Amino acid sequence: MTAPEPADMLWWGWGTEAGHAPLSEELRALVEQVLGMTRRDTPAVGLDTMRVPPVALGAAALAALTAAVGPAHVLTEPQARLLHSGGKSTTDLLRRRAGEAASVPDAVILPGGHEEVLAVLEACTAHAVAVIPFGGGTSVVGGVEPRRDGLSGCIALDLRRLDRLLEVDGESLIAIFEAGVRAPRAEALLAAHGLTLGHQPQSFEHTSLGGFAATRSAGQASAGYGRFDELVEGLVVATPIGAIELGRAPASAAGPDLRQLFLGSEGTLGVITRLRLRVRPLPAVRVFEGWSLPDFSAGVAALRRLAQTDGALPTVLRLSDPAETAITAAIAGEPTPAGCLAITGYEGEAVAVTARRLAAAAVLSGAGATPLGPGAGDSWQRTRYQGPYLRDALLGIGVLVETLETATSWSGLERLHATLGAVLSEALTAGGTPGLVLCHVSHVYATGASLYFTVVATQAADPLTQWATVKRAAGAAVAAAGATITHHHGVGLDHRDWMAQEIGELGVEILRAVKARLDPTGILNPGKLIPPRSGLPSADG
Amino acid sequence: MTAPEPADMLWWGWGTEAGHAPLSEELRALVEQVLGMTRRDTPAVGLDTMRVPPVALGAAALAALTAAVGPAHVLTEPQARLLHSGGKSTTDLLRRRAGEAASVPDAVILPGGHEEVLAVLEACTAHAVAVIPFGGGTSVVGGVEPRRDGLSGCIALDLRRLDRLLEVDGESLIAIFEAGVRAPRAEALLAAHGLTLGHQPQSFEHTSLGGFAATRSAGQASAGYGRFDELVEGLVVATPIGAIELGRAPASAAGPDLRQLFLGSEGTLGVITRLRLRVRPLPAVRVFEGWSLPDFSAGVAALRRLAQTDGALPTVLRLSDPAETAITAAIAGEPTPAGCLAITGYEGEAVAVTARRLAAAAVLSGAGATPLGPGAGDSWQRTRYQGPYLRDALLGIGVLVETLETATSWSGLERLHATLGAVLSEALTAGGTPGLVLCHVSHVYATGASLYFTVVATQAADPLTQWATVKRAAGAAVAAAGATITHHHGVGLDHRDWMAQEIGELGVEILRAVKARLDPTGILNPGKLIPPRSGLPSADG
Repeated sequence: MTAPEPADMLWWGWGTEAGHAPLSEELRALVEQVLGMTRRDTPAVGLDTMRVPPVALGAAALAALTAAVGPAHVLTEPQARLLHSGGKSTTDLLRRRAGEAASVPDAVILPGGHEEVLAVLEACTAHAVAVIPFGGGTSVVGGVEPRRDGLSGCIALDLRRLDRLLEVDGESLIAIFEAGVRAPRAEALLAAHGLTLGHQPQSFEHTSLGGFAATRSAGQASAGYGRFDELVEGLVVATPIGAIELGRAPASAAGPDLRQLFLGSEGTLGVITRLRLRVRPLPAVRVFEGWSLPDFSAGVAALRRLAQTDGALPTVLRLSDPAETAITAAIAGEPTPAGCLAITGYEGEAVAVTARRLAAAAVLSGAGATPLGPGAGDSWQRTRYQGPYLRDALLGIGVLVETLETATSWSGLERLHATLGAVLSEALTAGGTPGLVLCHVSHVYATGASLYFTVVATQAADPLTQWATVKRAAGAAVAAAGATITHHHGVGLDHRDWMAQEIGELGVEILRAVKARLDPTGILNPGKLIPPRSGLPSADG
Repeated sequence: MTAPEPADMLWWGWGTEAGHAPLSEELRALVEQVLGMTRRDTPAVGLDTMRVPPVALGAAALAALTAAVGPAHVLTEPQARLLHSGGKSTTDLLRRRAGEAASVPDAVILPGGHEEVLAVLEACTAHAVAVIPFGGGTSVVGGVEPRRDGLSGCIALDLRRLDRLLEVDGESLIAIFEAGVRAPRAEALLAAHGLTLGHQPQSFEHTSLGGFAATRSAGQASAGYGRFDELVEGLVVATPIGAIELGRAPASAAGPDLRQLFLGSEGTLGVITRLRLRVRPLPAVRVFEGWSLPDFSAGVAALRRLAQTDGALPTVLRLSDPAETAITAAIAGEPTPAGCLAITGYEGEAVAVTARRLAAAAVLSGAGATPLGPGAGDSWQRTRYQGPYLRDALLGIGVLVETLETATSWSGLERLHATLGAVLSEALTAGGTPGLVLCHVSHVYATGASLYFTVVATQAADPLTQWATVKRAAGAAVAAAGATITHHHGVGLDHRDWMAQEIGELGVEILRAVKARLDPTGILNPGKLIPPRSGLPSADG
């Protein structure tokens, strides 16, 4: 099976042109009314208007890179460089829409395999060139922002040519992939074997498997299929000082689990080139349903019971708070429902799905939930990847939209929902743009769950500062509550300076020690994940 | 609840005197007949006959230790030192039975809490004294063997006074323990709250929670309750340069999961002082059953189906190969059964247990298994902790008994069983003592399973060399098969020199880099887990 070259995402927004449609007049009017804003358009500047700085790489560095991957795979034209100039956070998009690129790599390098990645790292170490590993480019935390941090230049290491399914072990339910395979292609390749990964985050259509691993991605069906880190049986990593292969068995007591050091390392410790992944049979049955809960508290109690009851946990489980429930209905043009909407999904063999669905229904009914039937579930499933497109549309009419997420234990979840919701509202209002704060629970565990907030407000004159202020207040509230700064978006630049709070100063020192050993020149994704020793933001080149 | 001081285990063997009974004449005669040996007794030398070297610690070091924990908690008398002179591998026991202690710590230090552990580490760093963290002392891989490796002295850091249950969060199903709590006491403390850890390895009666964490323990009910590393939501670690606390949420994408660096670190990177653990409701129902499979291949296929079928995996699942099946029956005085014995156990709420049991029975019957009823299951459950006592009895009649274990994917499991079984048999025979090689599968995962071998032979004139030769051949076969050198016994000294094979030279370099940062003087459990850079065994002091 030949890989179709994956399309780059739009410069100014999410996905492809084909995925975009203008906002309906009804929705636009509703948003403007709710936010109390006057109509205006804030269109994006075109890619062709962008000025790109000259390539800073010297001839020797370019020659070494060309020797590593071949001349056809060293791209220095402005468009390729601009399309690798960062990720897809609202901050990224606001900048780009305004015609500003935070930073542009000097070249985009397309290695053809693990050995070529090693060769590129060797060349970049020799010439002190920063390397930004680039999968689907979907980071919403600044994880793929090109930074030099004192080095002579910077490349985006785009892994799209590492696109092969190398091996399928149907007996052990294991598949070995190259890390650049995009998620939809991975599913298509596995489907031919009757298998699936079952990993479908909202970014599914554009992400790579290596990116999932490097950021500890969590898919929308994490309750049933597990987080991506739980699917990684083994991995191969290219580092500036050589390759490392980890994971020889389904479980081991042979010392610390070093796979867990590279999962979540966001390209700062090495480049994941190969993944040995747990797969499952393609589900025979997929059912999605909606439930109505009287209030958020009852909803959280119901989710907790589902997560803690043997055999009752659905494959997909989500709960929107009253505000998100109301807005979801409004967007769909439906009347405002009471209480909270929950979505349950079940995937698997028919008999097992039926058993699980009955067990879950019993728990939900016992918790005061009312079944809404498959309509609400199908509606969620149909629109599950559309959130980022809607964000672009709203950014284009002067609205600020951004999300943040965290996780904590069940006993702290309602309090954190209330506290963080209030902090976000107050921060918006204090900035002069009172707005909407919506939230859902989308990943549940026996001991706790995630909270995913969406903030919607009128864009201020300086929307970057507007959001940065709100985000800082939220981060402080998360840290004070003892929750995690990120359940699944990752660290990148945006959460880096909370890392000492999250894992302690000594935890950060451990990451520095490992990085110093594997990447002595500091070429790998500089400035991300690991806060600089001074505690001050590191300087960008 | 006041903690009863946990009893030290016997000097020469497992557990307590009360747990020991002489071999029945029938069993002894059977063993002698099967191995073709003439009757002889190989009794253990008493603790009182042991000569103990003088305490090598200087006055300043002793004063610093005394300042850290108080004079009552610095033990230098010979008996306490001897009782902390190593673990419980067959090699350890053969040595001790012969009146030889491999090495004896200069003192046993009993800190009263996390802060005192930090103070001890500071004192030992200042005075260059090796620290051997000591929980239950059940290591079978040399993990608690006192070694100096060039340092001025050596202490056993016995954590038995860190014995408190600090917090129970029944809503989140989380309990916070100090790390020295012994497993039976942890279960008793949790039972008062209607909760359980469900972690019951064969060493259960004598192990500590910190030991479980530091060695990535797997309990006999791992299929239902998970491995111990999966139960650790958070941990606090004391290191020579300070404390580190990790784990703020049920799941996180805030960079690498550094908990996984300390889980399995075997006291080489820090001393785990506190654990935040996932707990579960005490099961309302416990059912154990036996099944007969026509042969090992059918048994493995059945276990694989159980592990890969939604809702069909028992809480406990084990499969003995034909040799172990036959010997188990012989020990119980039963006629030799055909085929292979499997044990299934189910724990939980009545309805869920029934559902799971029916689903498993359908899979087992479909795989050609015949139900044996609860008798075989109850018999296994009754004798589940008796293996180590039987080993002592056999060591006392001139028999060598030792175990080793590994894990691999389902597609490689039968081949590894055959290969490794043959290698063990051939190595025994080549050494002049043909013997029995028994095996069971006791931990299953969706992608693979463990193999646990027991070797029984007549003791050679030098049984230490006899076993070392066999073990070396087995290690080479495991590595050649791409399996893990240890599924749950850990690394310690015995597997240390296979670590570069297991995680690569770069993996070992990562461990060295982390250790150099956290333990710059190298006081923490020297010589264990991390192979010395030369590739040669490190010198012992």
